[in-house]
Amino acid sequence: MARKIILDCDPGHDDAVAILLALGSEKIDLLGITTIGGNQTLHKVTYNALAVLEEVKERTIPVAAGCASPLVRELEVAASVHGDTGLDGVDLPKPSRTVIDKHAVDFIIDTIMEHEPGTITLVPTGPLTNIAMAVRKEPMIVERVKEVVLMGGGVHVGNWSAVAEFNIKVDPEAAHVVFHAPWQVTMVGLDLTHQALCTPARQRDIESIGTPTAKFVSQLMDFFRKAYAQNQGFVDPPVHDPCTVAYLIDPNVMTVRKAPIDVETHGDLTLGMTVADLRAPAPADCHTQYAEKLDVDRFWQLIHESIENIGEGMEQ
Amino acid sequence: MARKIILDCDPGHDDAVAILLALGSEKIDLLGITTIGGNQTLHKVTYNALAVLEEVKERTIPVAAGCASPLVRELEVAASVHGDTGLDGVDLPKPSRTVIDKHAVDFIIDTIMEHEPGTITLVPTGPLTNIAMAVRKEPMIVERVKEVVLMGGGVHVGNWSAVAEFNIKVDPEAAHVVFHAPWQVTMVGLDLTHQALCTPARQRDIESIGTPTAKFVSQLMDFFRKAYAQNQGFVDPPVHDPCTVAYLIDPNVMTVRKAPIDVETHGDLTLGMTVADLRAPAPADCHTQYAEKLDVDRFWQLIHESIENIGEGMEQ
Amino acid sequence: MARKIILDCDPGHDDAVAILLALGSEKIDLLGITTIGGNQTLHKVTYNALAVLEEVKERTIPVAAGCASPLVRELEVAASVHGDTGLDGVDLPKPSRTVIDKHAVDFIIDTIMEHEPGTITLVPTGPLTNIAMAVRKEPMIVERVKEVVLMGGGVHVGNWSAVAEFNIKVDPEAAHVVFHAPWQVTMVGLDLTHQALCTPARQRDIESIGTPTAKFVSQLMDFFRKAYAQNQGFVDPPVHDPCTVAYLIDPNVMTVRKAPIDVETHGDLTLGMTVADLRAPAPADCHTQYAEKLDVDRFWQLIHESIENIGEGMEQ
Amino acid sequence: MARKIILDCDPGHDDAVAILLALGSEKIDLLGITTIGGNQTLHKVTYNALAVLEEVKERTIPVAAGCASPLVRELEVAASVHGDTGLDGVDLPKPSRTVIDKHAVDFIIDTIMEHEPGTITLVPTGPLTNIAMAVRKEPMIVERVKEVVLMGGGVHVGNWSAVAEFNIKVDPEAAHVVFHAPWQVTMVGLDLTHQALCTPARQRDIESIGTPTAKFVSQLMDFFRKAYAQNQGFVDPPVHDPCTVAYLIDPNVMTVRKAPIDVETHGDLTLGMTVADLRAPAPADCHTQYAEKLDVDRFWQLIHESIENIGEGMEQ
Repeated sequence: MARKIILDCDPGHDDAVAILLALGSEKIDLLGITTIGGNQTLHKVTYNALAVLEEVKERTIPVAAGCASPLVRELEVAASVHGDTGLDGVDLPKPSRTVIDKHAVDFIIDTIMEHEPGTITLVPTGPLTNIAMAVRKEPMIVERVKEVVLMGGGVHVGNWSAVAEFNIKVDPEAAHVVFHAPWQVTMVGLDLTHQALCTPARQRDIESIGTPTAKFVSQLMDFFRKAYAQNQGFVDPPVHDPCTVAYLIDPNVMTVRKAPIDVETHGDLTLGMTVADLRAPAPADCHTQYAEKLDVDRFWQLIHESIENIGEGMEQ
Repeated sequence: MARKIILDCDPGHDDAVAILLALGSEKIDLLGITTIGGNQTLHKVTYNALAVLEEVKERTIPVAAGCASPLVRELEVAASVHGDTGLDGVDLPKPSRTVIDKHAVDFIIDTIMEHEPGTITLVPTGPLTNIAMAVRKEPMIVERVKEVVLMGGGVHVGNWSAVAEFNIKVDPEAAHVVFHAPWQVTMVGLDLTHQALCTPARQRDIESIGTPTAKFVSQLMDFFRKAYAQNQGFVDPPVHDPCTVAYLIDPNVMTVRKAPIDVETHGDLTLGMTVADLRAPAPADCHTQYAEKLDVDRFWQLIHESIENIGEGMEQ
Repeated sequence: MARKIILDCDPGHDDAVAILLALGSEKIDLLGITTIGGNQTLHKVTYNALAVLEEVKERTIPVAAGCASPLVRELEVAASVHGDTGLDGVDLPKPSRTVIDKHAVDFIIDTIMEHEPGTITLVPTGPLTNIAMAVRKEPMIVERVKEVVLMGGGVHVGNWSAVAEFNIKVDPEAAHVVFHAPWQVTMVGLDLTHQALCTPARQRDIESIGTPTAKFVSQLMDFFRKAYAQNQGFVDPPVHDPCTVAYLIDPNVMTVRKAPIDVETHGDLTLGMTVADLRAPAPADCHTQYAEKLDVDRFWQLIHESIENIGEGMEQ
Repeated sequence: MARKIILDCDPGHDDAVAILLALGSEKIDLLGITTIGGNQTLHKVTYNALAVLEEVKERTIPVAAGCASPLVRELEVAASVHGDTGLDGVDLPKPSRTVIDKHAVDFIIDTIMEHEPGTITLVPTGPLTNIAMAVRKEPMIVERVKEVVLMGGGVHVGNWSAVAEFNIKVDPEAAHVVFHAPWQVTMVGLDLTHQALCTPARQRDIESIGTPTAKFVSQLMDFFRKAYAQNQGFVDPPVHDPCTVAYLIDPNVMTVRKAPIDVETHGDLTLGMTVADLRAPAPADCHTQYAEKLDVDRFWQLIHESIENIGEGMEQ
């Protein structure tokens, strides 16, 4: 049976790939896409989400716009990585539809409350503002959610500071709420996603599919490669966000480790760090875990398959 | 024309008086009461709000329940001041109705968006969680609200720490959001409310009205006097929350001073302090002010009049 | 019997007046002057201390140079108030002597340890680095000192931020050490020193003494008036530092209030705030107090008398 | 030529081994031992330092007592690891001598200033209070020191919290001063020292030397093994402090990596963390590095050799 997920994202090049990975897999039932100010402003990333769906002729999955700013702080965007539009490097089609008339926070709450307990998985790949807002507005969602599989953080690796990752650092207070809620949280952080490098060989493999979607992804990667080379010293860009979806399609794509994880909200040097306590084996009731080792081949195989499955578009 | 207000509260003895002050004044159009975990848990304060309305046979004004916890932190209640029920010392009638089927955050947003811009005043007398959530969920409310008149904080006075007041200290992050939003904020803090002391003479004057409501208020004050004497060393209890409503009935009941005000969210000793910068005259575009001097007689006259106006109850 | 004091200072216009006030009073036995980086760099304020002594032909009191930087942080100087030299506006004589061959920290420790317990008063009028270093290096000084009477902080008033004063904000960690050591601390802060305004009338009264020292002080005040007018919006400059010495000459020159006082070392808005807890009467063992009300006439009388006593210089 | 070092320590079982490693190596010229409150109170660790020297009949190397408390905070000792005496598990001989009449801070300063620039290496294996005090008291030592090789911190490993090591967490402000001073700092942290495990085989190898000193070390390890097993879940105890000395005897005993390293002084979860920025190659002027990989055999060989060299004691 397909996993019912809500993808809460801020496309973003790797968010776009995460959307495509979900759309192309029969293991995933994408109930909706919610958007969050992060890689770029809410307005831009919401447009991008709609445009990516348009690109693959997906016109039924609801898209709901969420919060424009972090819980407490001002929004800081990642233009250096994703460009001025949030999805620089591709010609996006104009979306033929718009967002639903429901706020992302309510879409998340209502979807969870309307489905059977333990059936919905939240997949945040941007700042955790919407999720934290939903928890605070309707605390009952916490026990009804199956699990939260998020891209963000890192135990031994940072990017937006020496020890903090962008999604968490942008809204550390929201992350604090999400990691403290007693649901199952899988943190797919930089320890893992920096293994998901789109090498030229991986990119050529995608291109070889030969569809418009394959070409679209390749163009995304062209820009992403340049951005990461210029700004973070990477030869090949790490494709963070789809790692979450890949894990839901096939849990064997990565190893995970249980550990208590908390979020630093007050440090001078460590603001937004996801602090895992590895000094002892995780206690039996530990509800957090993080991703350690990626099966790189399997990961790219999943990407390949989804793009192949999408073919000429979702309507076909 | 009456001032349209939403009272966002956590009754609470002085919140109860604030409700009655609003109900009994023709200058106030109480559009709704929203509740927030604060003086006691959300469940208890919501029950209390309904029961206070029941006490005065008020059965039409919508009551909407809000957030159970602060934006980021765990809730800390004020049982030492308000007792285990949040309204100890009185026999509350069982409410004949319940809350509306809309979350307080949405009630606040929808009410503001459905009314003409510049017509709605928010009157928070508890932690600012609901208000901050509303701002983050629908930022457009900020420019549509007429003003925010809140009980909380203090420039030179603290109660929950040496320099912080309970409402702000319980949810400093929410307060940070509220004080940073570019709307007009009047902070009715401890500098002012510690002048609103219910002396025995004031209490006897209320009792002299001779109605059930007058007796109800007097009983509230009996408990409040004891609680403040035991816990904070006051001879007479400060009746904080109705000062906000009194200001909206008659702005001359207090003097206010414009000053930039910000909220400390990180101090060891100063967490939740409302920091006013008094080193220079407030800049022309300063959107925050705080209450300094109470016209004590006028304040108690307004309380007296409202209780008198309520008479045997709102249905009469 | 004269009070034996060590003046730990960073001249600085008002430090210079504090030195003169001490030199001219028979109630004060100035055992030594120690210097600390603060209003200007250590090198400049040490030169200034020596030059001020030279100005009044004082050539015997030992001057010891102290720490160039705060305990933990980088030094931030107050050039806006004291100019590039730290004592702008006067022609300083070239000192005929130099500092002693002992570090200020050791001078403080040795002087205290060599005198009878309970006989030495420390009078810091700059950042508290030297004092904190001495406490850490030789904790026994704490019980041997008679008291610490310091210029710094403020309960309701800030200058270097909304709620922090320069001396404390420059080295909050040192202040933390000094306020936590269990000796008697009198904080002569901005609450008090902003009453010590050098009005034109006060300045003319000093000039009327007619000595070189009187003229020197008047020139200091000319610059100080301009600096405070331009940078802090004062009509007349507050002459902070001599208030400490005045209190030691005549305790009746000010009222003081016992209260627990602590120093905020972590706030975003409140770093370096001296937090007094005024919610209840100070406990019996409270070892800290702060100055509230200045007898302004008496203060200026003491200044006048000292300058008069200095006459044509200390050698006469 | 032997390396001239000052060992600033808080014995402590592994500090004791560090002392012996230094004493027994002809590559090390131990100019003095300074003590610091850390593993136990200053009084106890100073006694222990003298007693360890007595144990091996070392009666000439000066021992100077240092600071009893961290720069700003209260001392927190590590009794769970080192016992109530700081050196539980061995019968210490009564020292036949006492500390010199000079404070550790001054011993450090004077020794550095009296020797040729670039000849003295500081080897702190406890909290960095003495070193920070010395830097603040005499900043000129910074450019005269050859290098600082310290045990403390960890890039990916914590022990006193999830991400902080004891020595740094006990006095993070002192560590901040030491890491910010522009001298060469080699951080031998937990990443490295958790490789220096005293397995039963290593311990038997030491015992096989057959001298009183070998037996003494083995007894130290017996206690250390139990303490680490009970409190930190180690099978074999990590012998942290001698790793610093081993590196000075033979730099090839470990690999080091240059990286900017700073100390968190404000986090809720990360206080005292040594934050290394590994996102890019260290800049050319980077003055900090940390130890990564230990040559375990070589390390224990050096320990063995030193104990062997000590023979029946230093007087022989």
